[in-house]
Amino acid sequence: MFVVMAATASEADVLGVKSAILAEGLTPFEHSRPERTAIAVIGEMGGRRAALMDRLAALSGVERVTPINRPFKLTSREFHPESTVVRVLDAVVGDGGLTVMAGPCSVESRDQLFETAEGVAAAGATILRGGAFKPRTSPYSFQGLGVEALRYLAEARDRAGLPVVTEVMEPSQVDIVAEYADILQIGTRNMQNYSLLTAVGRVARPVMLKRGYGATIEEWLMAAEYIVSSGNPNVILCERGIRTFETYTRNTMDLTAVPLLHGLTHLPIIVDPSHATGKRALVQPMALAGVGAGADGIMVEVHPRPDDALSDAEQQLDLPMFRSLMAVMLPLHAELRRLRDGVEATAPSTVAQRSRSALRAAGSR
Amino acid sequence: MFVVMAATASEADVLGVKSAILAEGLTPFEHSRPERTAIAVIGEMGGRRAALMDRLAALSGVERVTPINRPFKLTSREFHPESTVVRVLDAVVGDGGLTVMAGPCSVESRDQLFETAEGVAAAGATILRGGAFKPRTSPYSFQGLGVEALRYLAEARDRAGLPVVTEVMEPSQVDIVAEYADILQIGTRNMQNYSLLTAVGRVARPVMLKRGYGATIEEWLMAAEYIVSSGNPNVILCERGIRTFETYTRNTMDLTAVPLLHGLTHLPIIVDPSHATGKRALVQPMALAGVGAGADGIMVEVHPRPDDALSDAEQQLDLPMFRSLMAVMLPLHAELRRLRDGVEATAPSTVAQRSRSALRAAGSR
Amino acid sequence: MFVVMAATASEADVLGVKSAILAEGLTPFEHSRPERTAIAVIGEMGGRRAALMDRLAALSGVERVTPINRPFKLTSREFHPESTVVRVLDAVVGDGGLTVMAGPCSVESRDQLFETAEGVAAAGATILRGGAFKPRTSPYSFQGLGVEALRYLAEARDRAGLPVVTEVMEPSQVDIVAEYADILQIGTRNMQNYSLLTAVGRVARPVMLKRGYGATIEEWLMAAEYIVSSGNPNVILCERGIRTFETYTRNTMDLTAVPLLHGLTHLPIIVDPSHATGKRALVQPMALAGVGAGADGIMVEVHPRPDDALSDAEQQLDLPMFRSLMAVMLPLHAELRRLRDGVEATAPSTVAQRSRSALRAAGSR
Amino acid sequence: MFVVMAATASEADVLGVKSAILAEGLTPFEHSRPERTAIAVIGEMGGRRAALMDRLAALSGVERVTPINRPFKLTSREFHPESTVVRVLDAVVGDGGLTVMAGPCSVESRDQLFETAEGVAAAGATILRGGAFKPRTSPYSFQGLGVEALRYLAEARDRAGLPVVTEVMEPSQVDIVAEYADILQIGTRNMQNYSLLTAVGRVARPVMLKRGYGATIEEWLMAAEYIVSSGNPNVILCERGIRTFETYTRNTMDLTAVPLLHGLTHLPIIVDPSHATGKRALVQPMALAGVGAGADGIMVEVHPRPDDALSDAEQQLDLPMFRSLMAVMLPLHAELRRLRDGVEATAPSTVAQRSRSALRAAGSR
Repeated sequence: MFVVMAATASEADVLGVKSAILAEGLTPFEHSRPERTAIAVIGEMGGRRAALMDRLAALSGVERVTPINRPFKLTSREFHPESTVVRVLDAVVGDGGLTVMAGPCSVESRDQLFETAEGVAAAGATILRGGAFKPRTSPYSFQGLGVEALRYLAEARDRAGLPVVTEVMEPSQVDIVAEYADILQIGTRNMQNYSLLTAVGRVARPVMLKRGYGATIEEWLMAAEYIVSSGNPNVILCERGIRTFETYTRNTMDLTAVPLLHGLTHLPIIVDPSHATGKRALVQPMALAGVGAGADGIMVEVHPRPDDALSDAEQQLDLPMFRSLMAVMLPLHAELRRLRDGVEATAPSTVAQRSRSALRAAGSR
Repeated sequence: MFVVMAATASEADVLGVKSAILAEGLTPFEHSRPERTAIAVIGEMGGRRAALMDRLAALSGVERVTPINRPFKLTSREFHPESTVVRVLDAVVGDGGLTVMAGPCSVESRDQLFETAEGVAAAGATILRGGAFKPRTSPYSFQGLGVEALRYLAEARDRAGLPVVTEVMEPSQVDIVAEYADILQIGTRNMQNYSLLTAVGRVARPVMLKRGYGATIEEWLMAAEYIVSSGNPNVILCERGIRTFETYTRNTMDLTAVPLLHGLTHLPIIVDPSHATGKRALVQPMALAGVGAGADGIMVEVHPRPDDALSDAEQQLDLPMFRSLMAVMLPLHAELRRLRDGVEATAPSTVAQRSRSALRAAGSR
Repeated sequence: MFVVMAATASEADVLGVKSAILAEGLTPFEHSRPERTAIAVIGEMGGRRAALMDRLAALSGVERVTPINRPFKLTSREFHPESTVVRVLDAVVGDGGLTVMAGPCSVESRDQLFETAEGVAAAGATILRGGAFKPRTSPYSFQGLGVEALRYLAEARDRAGLPVVTEVMEPSQVDIVAEYADILQIGTRNMQNYSLLTAVGRVARPVMLKRGYGATIEEWLMAAEYIVSSGNPNVILCERGIRTFETYTRNTMDLTAVPLLHGLTHLPIIVDPSHATGKRALVQPMALAGVGAGADGIMVEVHPRPDDALSDAEQQLDLPMFRSLMAVMLPLHAELRRLRDGVEATAPSTVAQRSRSALRAAGSR
Repeated sequence: MFVVMAATASEADVLGVKSAILAEGLTPFEHSRPERTAIAVIGEMGGRRAALMDRLAALSGVERVTPINRPFKLTSREFHPESTVVRVLDAVVGDGGLTVMAGPCSVESRDQLFETAEGVAAAGATILRGGAFKPRTSPYSFQGLGVEALRYLAEARDRAGLPVVTEVMEPSQVDIVAEYADILQIGTRNMQNYSLLTAVGRVARPVMLKRGYGATIEEWLMAAEYIVSSGNPNVILCERGIRTFETYTRNTMDLTAVPLLHGLTHLPIIVDPSHATGKRALVQPMALAGVGAGADGIMVEVHPRPDDALSDAEQQLDLPMFRSLMAVMLPLHAELRRLRDGVEATAPSTVAQRSRSALRAAGSR
């Protein structure tokens, strides 16, 4: 549930509500907007829910107390209607622009990383990706360069002027990764590693949370809820394909998750056609499909010489292919934005309103 | 396998090859192109394959004999490199334009159909859809108006000037449906109804083959192979979502099938976001995603008053929503085409070539 | 809904209820038990449901009118609490014994069939299986011997003394297959071929309905409902594996369907480990697992020389393997039955009752 | 690859081979059997593989060098043909007997645990289970009593005389859990938490590794490989259901994994019908199905008052239901073992041999 304060509520009123919540052994989360403040009540309530709602509704400055119908609370649009915009260095995710995260699957050497970083930056990428700690299905595969790779990434950030995203695999790595990287990535296999989610929820770095390949959209949002309820509001969701019976592709890219999530949550959502398809020839069409579906960004693996890559050789683009993708994707995104704005401006307002509310309701089952 | 004739081969040479194939109890399928003719050899070969290849290679006018590596033969790009373009009345599918099939889930009345037909035609749809025979999960649900609906569809075609697509559910219905409709649809539940596939393979009407919700891409192409090998080359594939563990949506739309299929087969491929998502608010973003993925067309359910619909009420658009979709989708498709042509023209030719051959190879597992 | 007649109701009362139902354009289905009669009301009711319930409840001889909570009606245990027992020649399915259907995937020759039939009969099989019309993924694979195979099957029945089950693929084949075979099989690809379901619903032969490899349990029961509501109450369900992401096996055998279905429906359920696993070494353990789960029978593919088989070579048992399976499976089933009866007899009756009612409730989601 | 030593090889010969392996930067794993010793060579070999095989084959005392065809090495039956038997206190897993792990989902209080422990011990359970650290989808659900629960578990072990299995969720918990518990459980969500797998690979406690609900059998064995290659050979696999499109059950229990794994690996495999089905009425039939499939054991959730449980209330058995299960399951398992031994003794040895080798080959795709 959350408490909506009256427009006229004072700071003391807000404090009074928070104290009442804390006194119950529950946690208040404040979401302030210019026109009014809302406070989510988080924790196990059991049988006292109804009585608590009544008690909070009676407090000074409270306009109303509203249940949150979904199991995810802080991440829901019900509680937080405006879209979250994540800012990191010069990059912005979720403001209507198109974020492009690009870089090699694994950081393999200083030279390989720098060559890629400069190439993707020149072509218009906004964030640099690169794996330092690599979760691999086999214990006998290349496991990443570790801290050495983190250092290269930090150097590459300075040279290319792009913030850096890289994966963190266990709670004890969070500090060192946060020291070097700008965005912490949680990989698909760790989406329900709750100790790790809680740990990244406590640092001052945005987190990119990849969907578990076997996870439902609801479980994914519950995983994001672990991070946000631990104190970190800057979560970016990344769709990277789910597991199905189809065998031509490594995974099945669930692009419908993009508009669904825009209705269910305020968090930005990007898509990763490299991991979803596993094949470089499919990356460009599926990146463009992601743009059509309304994604806030795209993550693409790029390697100067993909055939020599130590991991995921088959799915990485080379630099000319990446430039060719950008030459189509960026203007296509701009055109889509222009067209959407045009329709919103001219459509009878009821159509646009119905679309928006239908989208929010589309999450019901 | 298929036999590639020399550019200088005579008609008699072609006939000689066909006779040799028939003499083996196998069936020859000719694919003539301006520069040369190819003849596919279809049927069970068992142990005689190698000997047969040698024998055919030695015939007059034969340039070479080539195996077809995939289980689908006539539908493969290996045998038939140019894209198939299906023409029906004034509509064209697969020529680079965007086909828009629109209309109600079920034909419910003459008025309902005419109102929809005129509305979608005015908004730019190119083909009218409408269910006459409805396959329903429950024997107690509305099963369609049957032949009465076929008559309305034929009338609507004449009024709106759009060719008509409608589903056929069993071999004994093929003739009557072919009498009234321009394109025969095979529904998702009948994708492996081989008696039906063979029956529609024998009529002079294009067939739209929907993917089985539990079928792999390869099985889908094998189903198309049943139709083409029965004599009907005009098959349009339609992706409509597959079954996965995700429960927010009715199905999971497998858009990656679109670029994959463009590499594997010469048949056109359209997408159906209405059935894939089951929710009208998701139709527009997923139609645009389909455009981004490179689909040759979109099928959308439209009803003048969706909330009164006798079937699929939740997923049908009303006419203002359909117009709003078209206002974004048509110019977006045009822009994408322009951008792609531009990149192909300016990209170093090796990049474009590599993309094309990579796409064809992407079907390998 | 269904109408439960009072124990004292007369035949005229029953007739009165049926007439009232028919007068509404709905169909009555009578289920007579010694102690009382129930009449299901089948058809689209829409808004008149409540009024109709009241009206029927007021008729002479009616004890009460009860809604059926599930979408399947005639096949539900709510309406028909006793288990259906299917009898065909000397074989019985669903009476607590273990039905064993065995025979080749395809009938390939008179000799091959007779050798198999005699072998499986001698080992204790109760029903002979064999494919005459074969639905094959590829149009270029062996499609079965057709009517010739039907004749061999009828001959084999007479020699081996076993009733015969074989697949029917389209409505126009139903009569000829019913002429030669004792049980009509609907294959996995045709589970939602509603024309075919309706057609087999009209003949006087039991039907074995295989689960669609992509179908839910509820859709499977709805398919059975098509058959039963067309007039044929003798339906045997057959679990044969569903499609998942696992690739070591052809399908994933969903054995949990067995106890679930025993709660949801009165129809018998058998399992087919040959198609579910696709590998002969897995057939014995999974047949025994089926016995443990409570299946009413097992269907197994047996071929005298599996490596020469024209279809499904990898999954057919040879005769020694089949005999070895029977030597374990039959006494294991007998022991399980003995143990269950023992526990039911000694357990405090509340435990047994709770188990039964919990099982029926287990179908709720 | 692995090196098979001659029966006559000396200890010095074995040492010589190990040194040669270490000198390459690779790791030798020794598997000694009475008749001969084998040494697996573990690590990334890349291009030097062939040369290395030749070099090792030429060393003193080496009989032959054999490749391991599968990606899992130490866990494969190719390398280690005898079944691994895990012994912990008085319990034995994998020796042909039936291990029964039983206890509450979560340890909720000292009394609840003791009552359950004594009840399941009296009914014949061999290992006590109970959750101390609970991975929950929602951050707002009960997360377990933590270390307090560990203490209760240790006490319960002493009272009931049963070894204890409980879940560990992160590397930093491994030491404390290993201090109190006898078997460390890795939960389904952490199956690919490689940091955790490596950590439990370093302690002297058997590990029970649950299958990831979205993981293939091969990925599961690769996860086991992480543990074994870190130094811990005592891994028990636990099938607990995978995610499919079926919605009546929480997961789909993949029992075919049991015989498949018996062919692929030497590790014991148990099944968990409580989590696989999510419904208590389905636990008994699916436990018996697991016995039929050849499982080495069963894990069942038992709670004195399931309806009051703080987690998984719907799937826990109460004590009378557990006793009723045991009364059927234990004698059924004994009978199956007797029948199998009987068939093995009388069957022509070729049948038994073919079965075994077919089972090992069944893992090929």
